[in-house]
Amino acid sequence: MKGLFITFEGGEGAGKSSILKKLAENLEDEGYDVLTTREPGGIDIAEKIRHIILDPSHTAMDGRTEALLYAAARRQHLVEKVLPALDEGKIVLCDRFVDSSLAYQGYARGLGIDEVYEINKFAIEDCMPDTTLFFDITPERGLERIEQNKGREQNRLDLENLQFHHTVYEAYQKLLKKFPDRISVVNADQSFDDVLEDVTTRMKQWIHSRS
Amino acid sequence: MKGLFITFEGGEGAGKSSILKKLAENLEDEGYDVLTTREPGGIDIAEKIRHIILDPSHTAMDGRTEALLYAAARRQHLVEKVLPALDEGKIVLCDRFVDSSLAYQGYARGLGIDEVYEINKFAIEDCMPDTTLFFDITPERGLERIEQNKGREQNRLDLENLQFHHTVYEAYQKLLKKFPDRISVVNADQSFDDVLEDVTTRMKQWIHSRS
Repeated sequence: MKGLFITFEGGEGAGKSSILKKLAENLEDEGYDVLTTREPGGIDIAEKIRHIILDPSHTAMDGRTEALLYAAARRQHLVEKVLPALDEGKIVLCDRFVDSSLAYQGYARGLGIDEVYEINKFAIEDCMPDTTLFFDITPERGLERIEQNKGREQNRLDLENLQFHHTVYEAYQKLLKKFPDRISVVNADQSFDDVLEDVTTRMKQWIHSRS
Repeated sequence: MKGLFITFEGGEGAGKSSILKKLAENLEDEGYDVLTTREPGGIDIAEKIRHIILDPSHTAMDGRTEALLYAAARRQHLVEKVLPALDEGKIVLCDRFVDSSLAYQGYARGLGIDEVYEINKFAIEDCMPDTTLFFDITPERGLERIEQNKGREQNRLDLENLQFHHTVYEAYQKLLKKFPDRISVVNADQSFDDVLEDVTTRMKQWIHSRS
């Protein structure tokens, strides 16, 4: 039996990481075998690649270099962690995946969604997510949440200006049109409990429909 | 005035690095402005990427991860070092470039020459070498030379078995057919002085024909 591959997407501060963790618990309570992960996911080689990408001193990093590094880290995380779990029939919940590269590097950095999709197809072969949840919140509200959440470590991407985050938001709207069957929208501008209930209900139904 | 971009290719122990250095001196004696380089070429980000690729402890590294990392390092080296030199009208002599990825990852590792070429086109855009010299020597003779040259540091690729190096040799034969106008063959199984004389004469003529 093959598992199910579910990815969470959205801008900064959309709350997807916290919801992902709680959804996993809810699914485990139902008896499902769940793996939660995010790139680079503790995979040694992928961690080292991510370290290069997020190092704030790398101001000379070219946009195409960055996109290739994300694709490389994605490949290694997929091969070492995601695919073995799917082979064991697990439900894999992954915080960000290929759509993040299409939105951030492809659209916001101006490399082209289709061009970045090409190198990512090389990286993931035919292993696209079975379904993807887009956490919909305006950049203003998202960044507001980040500021409130002082425990969270800031990285180079958080420091981009508001305009950049607006462009990322626009990019996700384009991806919703490009992959209408795979990506669905979650209203992330609700209380945590409301978002969790919404996501849990929908994912239980979706998983049930696939078994 | 735009410079000229010349790459040196071939299996291990073909002597291309030593010839490249001497050719640069010979061209400088003729008054040309020459930059010699090899990936990662002292570019901080590219050095760090190469360190990940060549770390002998990374036995879990997937072939596609490796190919994407080479493309990423290539991009950064190109943008930070090669393109600025070409813009200044220099002759750039580069030890290995895109053909090495096509031969090693594309063919020898079985990822497909065309697939690896695709991600490299993303990395280099339209900046293919103006001409490429393939240093032709059998894998047996090449590895023999490496063993004699004990001062040279061994890396993970040198430790591959002879069969792998034969496959790389076969790959370069395919690339000669794929890019007949760009790549030309140097008989590398001669004395150092004979190879140098051959290469210097041909490159002087070729550069002259381009000015």
